[in-house]
Amino acid sequence: MPMFVNSIVLKKFRNYETLDLGFSSGINVIVGPNGSGKTNILEAVSVAANIRSFRGAADADMVKWGEESYFCRLTLSGSAFKELEIGYSSVPGTTRKKAKVDGCEIHRASDYFGRLLTVIYSPGDTLIISGSPEVRRRFFDAIIARVDREYLPLIGEFKKILASRNRLLKALLEKRTRVSELDVWDEMLATSSSGIVNKRMDFLESFTPSFIGAYQRIAKQDGVPVLRYHGTLGEGSVYEIREKISASRRRDIAAGMTTAGPHRDDYVLYHENGRPFSSCSSQGQKRTASIALKNAERLFIEKATGERVVLMVDDVFSELDPERRENIVDSLQGDNQVIFTMVNTGSIDLANFCGARIFNVGSRGIIS
Amino acid sequence: MPMFVNSIVLKKFRNYETLDLGFSSGINVIVGPNGSGKTNILEAVSVAANIRSFRGAADADMVKWGEESYFCRLTLSGSAFKELEIGYSSVPGTTRKKAKVDGCEIHRASDYFGRLLTVIYSPGDTLIISGSPEVRRRFFDAIIARVDREYLPLIGEFKKILASRNRLLKALLEKRTRVSELDVWDEMLATSSSGIVNKRMDFLESFTPSFIGAYQRIAKQDGVPVLRYHGTLGEGSVYEIREKISASRRRDIAAGMTTAGPHRDDYVLYHENGRPFSSCSSQGQKRTASIALKNAERLFIEKATGERVVLMVDDVFSELDPERRENIVDSLQGDNQVIFTMVNTGSIDLANFCGARIFNVGSRGIIS
Repeated sequence: MPMFVNSIVLKKFRNYETLDLGFSSGINVIVGPNGSGKTNILEAVSVAANIRSFRGAADADMVKWGEESYFCRLTLSGSAFKELEIGYSSVPGTTRKKAKVDGCEIHRASDYFGRLLTVIYSPGDTLIISGSPEVRRRFFDAIIARVDREYLPLIGEFKKILASRNRLLKALLEKRTRVSELDVWDEMLATSSSGIVNKRMDFLESFTPSFIGAYQRIAKQDGVPVLRYHGTLGEGSVYEIREKISASRRRDIAAGMTTAGPHRDDYVLYHENGRPFSSCSSQGQKRTASIALKNAERLFIEKATGERVVLMVDDVFSELDPERRENIVDSLQGDNQVIFTMVNTGSIDLANFCGARIFNVGSRGIIS
Repeated sequence: MPMFVNSIVLKKFRNYETLDLGFSSGINVIVGPNGSGKTNILEAVSVAANIRSFRGAADADMVKWGEESYFCRLTLSGSAFKELEIGYSSVPGTTRKKAKVDGCEIHRASDYFGRLLTVIYSPGDTLIISGSPEVRRRFFDAIIARVDREYLPLIGEFKKILASRNRLLKALLEKRTRVSELDVWDEMLATSSSGIVNKRMDFLESFTPSFIGAYQRIAKQDGVPVLRYHGTLGEGSVYEIREKISASRRRDIAAGMTTAGPHRDDYVLYHENGRPFSSCSSQGQKRTASIALKNAERLFIEKATGERVVLMVDDVFSELDPERRENIVDSLQGDNQVIFTMVNTGSIDLANFCGARIFNVGSRGIIS
């Protein structure tokens, strides 16, 4: 039996004074008007799974208005452990956050992560397509880090090299040192960059077929999308990267910082005809692509871990046409537990969800 | 009779080889699946009204795939002129863009702007709430500029002063000049900043009631939102601003740039209880706030110009609950011409739209 969230208990979290919900192991649908607190439930699950909010919210913002602490407990089935708890409290002078597994406090975040695997489909996901390169790097870096334990240390090392080289470039701008000082840093930058770019390119090669499959399952008529890595230092070999670093040295010195490298690279999505999605696609196509990226992410994590991911789908259907909606619901169906939120059940054919558990949230956050 | 768009003719624009549509002076609804080209029609109207795409697209991206030029003609009623045309062509070596009013070419953009007033409600508008301060400054600056002819020159002057002061700060960082050189620039910066901040604060005072009214008309249960100006140099008086500039001088010199001023100020939206919308509101509440901002913008422009604005509503309903949808449709009703796009008419009660003209777009962009 795949892992799933059996129940959630919330105290003083967002708009909930208390909440105690039992989930179905299959499809769950949370229905309610805007601002009633549907997404807050998904956020609580994500906090319990990943310590942090998927919306990037500060803990203080998740505490119910006028209170000083929040608490969130998940009970699980199909896993080696039964209970995840996150508690946060902030009174003037002391702020505490505790994470517990089966009642035992966990002191290192890395011992907590990865116990409950979640993927969240949320309205802001289209920014992966149309937002800044940083948004895309963050999205892909997070997936690579989940399936390759060497990747995060490599990124950490690169950041240190980059910071040192940038300090040196700033000193050069102010004529406080000599250009030859750069040599050793350029070499380290080349080796480190090549390591990262190679991992990214390898990853993209295995990720792309899953992504294309996921996209075409939703909208075959759109053609085959192309996902490409744009390396500001070329695309992989240390030799090429070394050449490009030395070619951009003058520009780097003039700018007082490293102008090219993995920290400036981008992943770009194109239509079959070669036009970029960011400027040549409709809102619905961007939505389709972002859902396909998430579907591919989920397949990737499941393959790497051998575990099932809990899927949380935060009202991403609304701007899609009926055919795409159908196809997405189909592509989410499986053994996975899924928690949907929607403003009304009319946006989806509930007949598809045999045995789904429906939760109605009132305008004051009361659940029936 | 208020101004309205009678018909639109497109050639080689986005997915349209040719398109010739006659609009109703009241409600128009463009219905079709994702990627069929609904938004492209609104984009064409916005290009003809404002020379530029409301999506920020490059002209080359608006040319139909494989072609070299696009053309867009609007015929209008209820106005002193009858026809607006925009043509763009790009062959290797020459790129041309022409704007014509009643067949006569217009050479200065400022002679073209403002002839057809439009407000576009689009899915990306929630970024006005949750995006960077720059997005908000751009939104409000554009409205102020539309109703106050002194505002843009003031901003232009400020930018020059800022650039000069930044050059000086950079020279100071490199020890190429003396600190006393800053005095004259600080004084100019204070006067210019104060002028801008005062205009912004005055504007906000008259804008806020329209905004609150518009918000409450959509969602009374959310309470009274508060819109506040966050001035990095205080909020208006030259005296205070001068003090703050001199207090931040050391920081500015260390950073090599001007760290506070109207170019760093922000507008922040709060709930009645004081929590910011950006981190403490649902997607639906952000949507509601962004539509209310646009409604207030429209009222402002209509009051300032005595003209009616053509409203284009690009599928912003989908994530809203039925009550908010109803309320928005009510608040858009009036003498104005409205062009809606939606993936299916089910998202709105068409009975509200008596006499609406419905256009069905097929998956290949063919309109019936």
